[in-house]
Amino acid sequence: VIYAVTPTYTRWTQKADLTRLAQTLLHVPNLHWIVVEDAERKTPLVTKFLKYSGLQYTHLNSKTDANYKLKADDPNWLLPRGVAQRNVGLSWIRKNVPPSTSGVLYLMDDDNTYSLKLFEEMRTIATAAVWPVGLTGGLKFEGPGSCSGGKVLSWYTAWKPERPFPIDMAGFAVNLKLFFQHKNAEFSNKVPRGYLESHFLTSLDLTRDDVEGKVEDCSEILVWHTRTEKATLKQEAKLISMGNPSNPDIEV
Amino acid sequence: VIYAVTPTYTRWTQKADLTRLAQTLLHVPNLHWIVVEDAERKTPLVTKFLKYSGLQYTHLNSKTDANYKLKADDPNWLLPRGVAQRNVGLSWIRKNVPPSTSGVLYLMDDDNTYSLKLFEEMRTIATAAVWPVGLTGGLKFEGPGSCSGGKVLSWYTAWKPERPFPIDMAGFAVNLKLFFQHKNAEFSNKVPRGYLESHFLTSLDLTRDDVEGKVEDCSEILVWHTRTEKATLKQEAKLISMGNPSNPDIEV
Ligand SMILES: O=c1ccn([C@@H]2O[C@H](COP(=O)(O)OP(=O)(O)O)[C@@H](O)[C@H]2O)c(=O)[nH]1
Ligand SMILES: O=c1ccn([C@@H]2O[C@H](COP(=O)(O)OP(=O)(O)O)[C@@H](O)[C@H]2O)c(=O)[nH]1
Ligand SMILES: [Mn+2]
Ligand SMILES: [Mn+2]
Repeated sequence: VIYAVTPTYTRWTQKADLTRLAQTLLHVPNLHWIVVEDAERKTPLVTKFLKYSGLQYTHLNSKTDANYKLKADDPNWLLPRGVAQRNVGLSWIRKNVPPSTSGVLYLMDDDNTYSLKLFEEMRTIATAAVWPVGLTGGLKFEGPGSCSGGKVLSWYTAWKPERPFPIDMAGFAVNLKLFFQHKNAEFSNKVPRGYLESHFLTSLDLTRDDVEGKVEDCSEILVWHTRTEKATLKQEAKLISMGNPSNPDIEV
Repeated sequence: VIYAVTPTYTRWTQKADLTRLAQTLLHVPNLHWIVVEDAERKTPLVTKFLKYSGLQYTHLNSKTDANYKLKADDPNWLLPRGVAQRNVGLSWIRKNVPPSTSGVLYLMDDDNTYSLKLFEEMRTIATAAVWPVGLTGGLKFEGPGSCSGGKVLSWYTAWKPERPFPIDMAGFAVNLKLFFQHKNAEFSNKVPRGYLESHFLTSLDLTRDDVEGKVEDCSEILVWHTRTEKATLKQEAKLISMGNPSNPDIEV
């Protein structure tokens, strides 16, 4: 089983992003989707969406602490995103999945793009595996740069190469067994920028030498760090400010 | 059969966008995808992508005339996009599809988001049908605002409401029969901003009274005008300017 943990938050493009991500996952057998809303309460939108998604899922929620929440005008790199939500997903797995379950853990952001082949690659991870991620780190791709027979020979990054793992969240998955063996493995808000992934992987006692390089010797891009443009909706903003928004009965 | 015409052009996020759109279409039975590249020649990237997509497709190309091509710094609304490509797709249908074929024509941009239910709605269009599109026209949604028993009672738009059809490209589909009956129906670069859809629909001799309102009396949003954020890739740009780009053998 692939346990995929996805943080998500309310915004104009949320339902659209969840819609196409769910269509990807509908092609993947044996996947359990753990969707964690960054919200005080589970929203009707996500609740209904998941109910009719046709997927096997768990719906959770946890609001990011105000200290760690981006303000509307903050640049998106100022604070890590999705940390509390990913940890709630991890806790759910620890409590609800029998440790003998064979499977992997994968962290999936809600606006990335995932090739179906990636999920097949993921099913044969002995402890932890990595692969390059497209459109990240300011580069065409970042992560393992060359691999041979599962060994990562070099890492490819242009930013903070001294990080234990210069890789995006979408560039690794770990075997559940390894995860269960490390009871304290989790994400942290208190790490320097760019160290979210490295912190998690080192909390699993992994070093660069321990991870397997996957996907045609790390030569193929099967996941892209796409970002959905923020919908500005100027006319809608005007209507809202006049207390007269578009039909509230229509869910977008 | 649904004939879906999609213009597409080379950019960092192209393969990602095509990947998730293809995953959507893989769920849709009886669909023929006409992909038209805005390019002098068919690119290896799109050629290979389509070949392994698992979809029934036709691959075409046609470069937008330089006079009508946006420059890198132009705002995206300055010129219409995808006009020449859509017309090449329409010509292909006129030449290759027997006019007796029962089916519909739908124009699909490569970075929108489409719900699977929309394609089911589309299969029963008598002449032409419309539905609201999310995140467009500066509003939560735009297009038919209320419908009853297939009749559009009102239109909902905040911008140029005098347009014959205040609706996005993703908000309508037409029966092939109607299309074949109007040999000159096509898209035009020479129309005022926002009139691309209206020009095409009126070239099919349609008025607002002729189109059927679909999708739960136009009350459900099944398609969103999402836009994928341009990947800026600063480090990659630096490498390219130094004549030393990331591994060119790795396709992103
Ligand atoms: O306030 C927020 C912002 C983001 N996210 C989620 O955290 C993940 C990463 O966020 P985003 O995609 O905005 O980050 P980026 O692509 O810029 O790294 C996504 O699944 C978001 O839905 C969240 O839960 N709360
Ligand atoms: O130079 C271009 C720009 C866009 N497009 C295509 O035209 C459609 C509409 O373009 P875009 O999504 O950029 O427009 P917007 O979402 O801003 O209306 C998409 O399928 C693009 O791939 C194209 O063929 N050539
Ligand atoms: Mn993201
Ligand atoms: Mn678009």
